[in-house]
Amino acid sequence: MRNISFRNVGLKDGFWKNRWDINRNTTLRCVYERFKDSGRIDAFRCDYDRETGKGTRAHYFWDSDVAKWIEAASYCLEKAPDPDLEEKIEWIIDRIEEHADPDGYFNIYFLTVEPENRFRDRMKHELYCAGHLMEAAVAYKKATGRDRFLRLMERYADYIYRVFVEEGSAGFRTPGHEEIELALVRMYEETGNLKYLDLARFFVNKRGTEGPDAPDRYTQSHVPVREFTEAVGHAVRAVYLYSAMADLARIDSDAGLKEACMRLFRSITEEKMYITGGIGSNSCGEAFAYPFYLPNLNAYAETCAAIGLVFFLERMQEIDINSRYADVIERVIYNGALCGISLDGRNFFYRNPMEIRPGDAELQNMSYSNTQRPELFECSCCPPNVARFFASIGDLAYSVNGNTIYVQQFMSSDAEIGLPAGKITLTQTTDYPLSGKITFESTSDVALAIRIPWWSRAYSDLKDRDGYMRLKLKSGRPLTVDLGMEAGFVRCDPRVRDNVNKTALMRGPVVYCAEGVDNGGGLDCLMVDPLSRITVLDENVSLPVLQCSGARILPESSLYQGYGPVRAENVKIRFIPYHATENRGETAMKVWLDIEPLDTSHPDVIH
Amino acid sequence: MRNISFRNVGLKDGFWKNRWDINRNTTLRCVYERFKDSGRIDAFRCDYDRETGKGTRAHYFWDSDVAKWIEAASYCLEKAPDPDLEEKIEWIIDRIEEHADPDGYFNIYFLTVEPENRFRDRMKHELYCAGHLMEAAVAYKKATGRDRFLRLMERYADYIYRVFVEEGSAGFRTPGHEEIELALVRMYEETGNLKYLDLARFFVNKRGTEGPDAPDRYTQSHVPVREFTEAVGHAVRAVYLYSAMADLARIDSDAGLKEACMRLFRSITEEKMYITGGIGSNSCGEAFAYPFYLPNLNAYAETCAAIGLVFFLERMQEIDINSRYADVIERVIYNGALCGISLDGRNFFYRNPMEIRPGDAELQNMSYSNTQRPELFECSCCPPNVARFFASIGDLAYSVNGNTIYVQQFMSSDAEIGLPAGKITLTQTTDYPLSGKITFESTSDVALAIRIPWWSRAYSDLKDRDGYMRLKLKSGRPLTVDLGMEAGFVRCDPRVRDNVNKTALMRGPVVYCAEGVDNGGGLDCLMVDPLSRITVLDENVSLPVLQCSGARILPESSLYQGYGPVRAENVKIRFIPYHATENRGETAMKVWLDIEPLDTSHPDVIH
Repeated sequence: MRNISFRNVGLKDGFWKNRWDINRNTTLRCVYERFKDSGRIDAFRCDYDRETGKGTRAHYFWDSDVAKWIEAASYCLEKAPDPDLEEKIEWIIDRIEEHADPDGYFNIYFLTVEPENRFRDRMKHELYCAGHLMEAAVAYKKATGRDRFLRLMERYADYIYRVFVEEGSAGFRTPGHEEIELALVRMYEETGNLKYLDLARFFVNKRGTEGPDAPDRYTQSHVPVREFTEAVGHAVRAVYLYSAMADLARIDSDAGLKEACMRLFRSITEEKMYITGGIGSNSCGEAFAYPFYLPNLNAYAETCAAIGLVFFLERMQEIDINSRYADVIERVIYNGALCGISLDGRNFFYRNPMEIRPGDAELQNMSYSNTQRPELFECSCCPPNVARFFASIGDLAYSVNGNTIYVQQFMSSDAEIGLPAGKITLTQTTDYPLSGKITFESTSDVALAIRIPWWSRAYSDLKDRDGYMRLKLKSGRPLTVDLGMEAGFVRCDPRVRDNVNKTALMRGPVVYCAEGVDNGGGLDCLMVDPLSRITVLDENVSLPVLQCSGARILPESSLYQGYGPVRAENVKIRFIPYHATENRGETAMKVWLDIEPLDTSHPDVIH
Repeated sequence: MRNISFRNVGLKDGFWKNRWDINRNTTLRCVYERFKDSGRIDAFRCDYDRETGKGTRAHYFWDSDVAKWIEAASYCLEKAPDPDLEEKIEWIIDRIEEHADPDGYFNIYFLTVEPENRFRDRMKHELYCAGHLMEAAVAYKKATGRDRFLRLMERYADYIYRVFVEEGSAGFRTPGHEEIELALVRMYEETGNLKYLDLARFFVNKRGTEGPDAPDRYTQSHVPVREFTEAVGHAVRAVYLYSAMADLARIDSDAGLKEACMRLFRSITEEKMYITGGIGSNSCGEAFAYPFYLPNLNAYAETCAAIGLVFFLERMQEIDINSRYADVIERVIYNGALCGISLDGRNFFYRNPMEIRPGDAELQNMSYSNTQRPELFECSCCPPNVARFFASIGDLAYSVNGNTIYVQQFMSSDAEIGLPAGKITLTQTTDYPLSGKITFESTSDVALAIRIPWWSRAYSDLKDRDGYMRLKLKSGRPLTVDLGMEAGFVRCDPRVRDNVNKTALMRGPVVYCAEGVDNGGGLDCLMVDPLSRITVLDENVSLPVLQCSGARILPESSLYQGYGPVRAENVKIRFIPYHATENRGETAMKVWLDIEPLDTSHPDVIH
């Protein structure tokens, strides 16, 4: 099964077109401006003089930040020309061409600050930066047809092949931060050059084998990749590697790699994923923790990790026909990833906790523990990742297997899809996730497999074992399905200790949260009645505001007292979508709320 | 009202005599040996050569560690002679005499490592170390009658008076770590020299006034002390200062200071104290946090802070006749302070959390986040503090006002108490807190005011407004009271968010906890039925093991699912005293357990 590229999917009015426009018109521009202001663009002049300290001194990961912005910009160029954007990119390519070593090597930091240490330290992101430059070069070539950047990156990849495979002359064998593996697959798929596929295989297969880099869990170098049983280490690195593993499992029909990927998928989704699709719960090391360690307040759940999880899952759905991958993708795109950007597209969350308490950051001594989204971070991987991710969100809509089109995500769009039986145009018209109604229309008769989401009660008897409802769409005969869009409370496996006796509210795929600004300030004394009716209010914060009944436990006269009835008052509790949190000033936020104790033996509870 | 010194209280068989013996025979020796091994003793040779780096390089707080040990050893010498102990102390005094500056100054670090920076940096503990040396000198003089050490410290105090009061030549006006204030009061009370009282007043009154040291909340230098409304900053520093404030309020009948002390007492006990009497919840800065911020897992609750709180409270009960101070002292001594030392007296907790999860320390990146008590810390203030505290625990038993003896704490003992009406011997015989039965006997008729603890239901109608039951004890006519020793569940003000929907178990003054080792490993899925009968088992871990009924929520087949009945099984939950936690190998521990949801709308809960 292959996914249909966003290049073939034209978004129409609706949730994702709206996000795409904000991303194009605001986020892309803001990221460039802030990269300009922070010296990241000028650093490509490679004018840092370490004798005098003059010029722009790059951090060793700055190349990757800008590369991701070029990738995002290229994706936007696919949809509409923009000479100014192209000029900005061409200027950067000029600089790369100008300063790249004759052997093809390019890395601002190691060309200017530590030239004597090229490829000595696997933890310094050289191959990670190279991978992002390669992804950007492929994207720019596809968008413009101009291959100057791609040729520079081919020469660089050839050089890397020589150093790592032919000569083995680097100070390490595999990168400390994965990324180049999946980028090399893209290079191979764009150029057809098998050398890049070989190099991707080399980096994947050497990882965790004996040598100077192993064993190290943080960089997934603890065992060879085919022996992976559990998602471990730095979460972004992990899912970037898993993405390349899934790529190679597909290209090479490698059963060992595929089985490892399936185990990793289960490890993540059954034991290590927030309800939002956020992953990497452990603030120490931005890493996967042990199973069921999913703290709410201290959640790390980096935006980049959520995005990287989608990279892994979209590749999984190509090698294993099952709607579970798209189910989790849906969880991530409406929640864990979308929370990373403010509604206006200007400001970013690096970490995406399940609970925010203004004032606690200082007490918890948390890094990046913003209660508000800043404009940029020192370590600014997330902002351009958000930009490239939402610019290519259409990638997630469809997959094709034989002559069947799999509808993976619901987004208003016109798609040009090539099938063995010929090219068709498939139209989706929907206000999803406002409602669950989706109308399909096509220019020819076509077999559809429509994902029935895990949360939907509709069509459950028509769903096949893979989670899809299969039907024939007749040319010119629009067909509407309605998945419903009911709100309901969710509970968590009690092995997640923070969520024992708690519940969360979802509406369709959208996780909701309570904010202090809507609920009289403090949220900790609020108790939800999970059997109460959930009302959809005629009021929107990104999506409709929800309301349920509950209680507010009242303060006591002393800090500790003998057990007895609690004093409480009836309240209505309001919820907004999790992804829209912290858009109306700094305020407390909670996804998981306490469940009201139905303590019938204490009839004197005030209700 | 004045407290009766432990010197007049001979502990007899019982809970505290047992602890006293362990403290004398094990803790005191272990602390010395570890101080010897770590160079803290040899550092008194002052042989560090900063040119060559040879000799022992002291940390700037090492003097205080050893001083507290001398104080502890001196307290033990009060009860039984020990030439070896005296010899060790004399050796240290020899070194102080040998190396003290002719002007009286003594501080190993500033004599050897930074002699040019004497009294330049208020955050470097010089006056803190001086204070502890003074307390030790007073203790040693009282124990042995020999005043060589005390005279050295008098000379040092005179020098400090000159530098800070007369010349104002130091780089600061008040110490960054309080301690010398209360030590100077001890010096005054031992020597009668009003200069030391003046100096104590100087340091207390200058704090928080305009000048180079203010404003700073961390060191309680944000406002002048009489304006304090809330306990803030580093908890140990705070309560040491508050102790001196209470001393001065008593000595000077200073109403402004007394009122400030009363506000601080309420701030601590109504908003900032763990159920164990632990204080300083904030790991960042070992500090008081905002009101009701009392996290369980991340609790700091340093042992020294609990001990310091008792120092403050025992002084408060001298200026305000009310049993609430002794009630909190009781909470601290059986829980928050006692937890700081292992049952065998060898190993120490620096922080005393309400919950321990082996394996979490790494994830939380917590400093001093031991799940087991180590033998010593780099920053080793707590071990000798524990030693001096339990060596003088008899201090807490009695106070006297006029001819009335206030029974503040219950401990088997023979006390020699001087009253205006003459000297009497008062005997307490009790296995408290095993039971609540206490038998009093005296050599003369005497008026007793027996504290009726907050948790006791006995004698509530005989308790006066100050919390005491007043009665006449006739000479030779033993009288037994029985306070009961019922176990019961406690709940917490819901403004403490970690304890919403949770309960803790106490028996009398003793806080209990559940440990993994007794409850099948994990504790997070355990739910207490707070209405169940609590059984006292015929089994001891320091004190009787308790058991109640509850449920264990069973794992689910998926991480998240729609709200519905939970699967649970009936279990018995076992509890041991909190102070005895982590004495049977590393295991999970929880003070606050979830309350079983009495969810009658889900009759298919397995019970």
